[in-house]
Amino acid sequence: MSNQSVVVIGGGPAGLRAATTVAELGERVTLIEQRSFLGGTPIAENYASLTPHLHSAEESIGAIVTRLQGLPGVEILTETEVQSLQGEAGDFTVSVSGPGGNRDIAAGAIVVATGFQHFDPGRETQMYGYYEYPDVVALQDLEAMIKDGNIVRPSNGETPKRICFIQCVGSRDRQIGNEYCSKVCCGVASKEAIEVREAIPDSEVFIFYIDMRMYGYWESQIYWPAQEKHHVQYVKGIVTEILRKEDKLLVRGEDTTMGRPMEVMMDMVVLSVGMEPSAGTRKIAGVLGINQNKYGFIDVANPPLDTVSTSRDGIFAAGAALGPADLEDCSSSGGMAAARAVALMRRAVAAG
Amino acid sequence: MSNQSVVVIGGGPAGLRAATTVAELGERVTLIEQRSFLGGTPIAENYASLTPHLHSAEESIGAIVTRLQGLPGVEILTETEVQSLQGEAGDFTVSVSGPGGNRDIAAGAIVVATGFQHFDPGRETQMYGYYEYPDVVALQDLEAMIKDGNIVRPSNGETPKRICFIQCVGSRDRQIGNEYCSKVCCGVASKEAIEVREAIPDSEVFIFYIDMRMYGYWESQIYWPAQEKHHVQYVKGIVTEILRKEDKLLVRGEDTTMGRPMEVMMDMVVLSVGMEPSAGTRKIAGVLGINQNKYGFIDVANPPLDTVSTSRDGIFAAGAALGPADLEDCSSSGGMAAARAVALMRRAVAAG
Repeated sequence: MSNQSVVVIGGGPAGLRAATTVAELGERVTLIEQRSFLGGTPIAENYASLTPHLHSAEESIGAIVTRLQGLPGVEILTETEVQSLQGEAGDFTVSVSGPGGNRDIAAGAIVVATGFQHFDPGRETQMYGYYEYPDVVALQDLEAMIKDGNIVRPSNGETPKRICFIQCVGSRDRQIGNEYCSKVCCGVASKEAIEVREAIPDSEVFIFYIDMRMYGYWESQIYWPAQEKHHVQYVKGIVTEILRKEDKLLVRGEDTTMGRPMEVMMDMVVLSVGMEPSAGTRKIAGVLGINQNKYGFIDVANPPLDTVSTSRDGIFAAGAALGPADLEDCSSSGGMAAARAVALMRRAVAAG
Repeated sequence: MSNQSVVVIGGGPAGLRAATTVAELGERVTLIEQRSFLGGTPIAENYASLTPHLHSAEESIGAIVTRLQGLPGVEILTETEVQSLQGEAGDFTVSVSGPGGNRDIAAGAIVVATGFQHFDPGRETQMYGYYEYPDVVALQDLEAMIKDGNIVRPSNGETPKRICFIQCVGSRDRQIGNEYCSKVCCGVASKEAIEVREAIPDSEVFIFYIDMRMYGYWESQIYWPAQEKHHVQYVKGIVTEILRKEDKLLVRGEDTTMGRPMEVMMDMVVLSVGMEPSAGTRKIAGVLGINQNKYGFIDVANPPLDTVSTSRDGIFAAGAALGPADLEDCSSSGGMAAARAVALMRRAVAAG
């Protein structure tokens, strides 16, 4: 085992997988997390279950945390942030500040796994009324209700009987600057739609979408069961506005398959908000001196055959810090980044 | 370095990334490939360029092969197949047969990267006429023409001026048993459409689709340029039959956005065939005693947070052997599988 660590920044799914992999490969790892707990956005935002298998988010991610804590050579620093970076690949010094004060960590290599944040639909207030109407919520708001076992209309505490999801809020949208597709929202909305149908059997659930991007196995694992078993109703359409009408929400737009205007009354509207780089991702890029793409995510130097190298030698990135990513992407790229970091550190040690 | 190898089965993108990563981590690796060359399907099927960046497939994959060949502890066995497996995790014996006869390899762990094959549209002959009409081709047939710089109608050698792609051939189809979405065909068809438009500026290119699954950055990297810069015409529609009419192809179906029947004449039709497990993937599962899913791909034991463990301890899988995968999936899971394999082998050595 080297005297150096691999420093992994971010304790969400990608960072947890990266840290676990470094330790499994027999090297020291220091995991730095700015929150007071591990698990990243799925835990911070109270995800009920993971897409596509509907396993408990707490249990699934908790199992990795437990495994990580039990491995030798692992140091976990919560409530800690990276302040600066000195040195070069194979011989970095990472300065951090945390509850115990400031500290320098000798790092052979670094993995950035600082993740994403949900698009804030406040920017589109005029259109969808997220901050105006209590019964317009976002994917993560509904997720938390599902986790609580208490799906209610925020306006009055009643059980919603007609619920719709609006896809691509903050994605595929040049006007707001997010031209990319956020990749996971079709799957997550469909998963939540299934959970609503299970929790409220007499509910009607609609998903208004442009394209249903249920790639790979999500097609058969979520999309077909959502329709055939759970009777979720998919409507290819564009929602242009939401208005309050008495105590309901009037959703207006166009059903593009039927080629006609659409006006439907809903008890609750769920905005399928996309992914944006987290504040941590935006900040760490500057601290470490690595390139970002035009959206603020970390830039990958040589895709698609190298998915984890950043613009700076010795610094790798993984998961949703790189852009829209599902959990499999986070796991695989987390492991890959760890392997590259360990390999680089050992080469540096052998040469040093 | 251990006396054992990690045995990587399959020399396509995932296997190459896995083997490279094992060697970078300082362990011996034996790469077994049944073909006489490395590179997998992209090389065997003459891919012109890789999705989404349009980098040369030969150059991009060639660079990884060159890197692998230059690393210590690497043995590459082409024209070689795995015959049987003995032992257990940490102490396998892999028996192979190749040009030099039979051989046993001491393996601490195994990575299966045996990939996919293109869906054979022969099964749907009645509908699309792949084996009946020379000008009905598949994605990989057009790819080879693009690579040759010679896009012509196979029937008469003339330059096609009206070309359409039909999506989801052999995917999202319960009748043929492939309920999954093949994930990459929307991107690959759009990439080829761009290449056709560049090669034949006075051509008209159409893509008939159900949903355009241009997830993540593919939306802004391929889908938008295809439409805005290259004027590829996307039509949401279902093609029900293709007929020969004089020396053209009559494509019949329904334009689902316009809600009306569609009859269009084409010079060439490209079937966007999906992914199926390769013959090698189907076979290796039996030889190694690992579970397959209902489609014949290798089953992952614990997704989505563990993307590479199979049903048998010490055997990992990566890339399109696991199901529909893009090149980033193959790279990341290849590296992840390598890390897990090395970690397992070292634990076994330390304990042994």
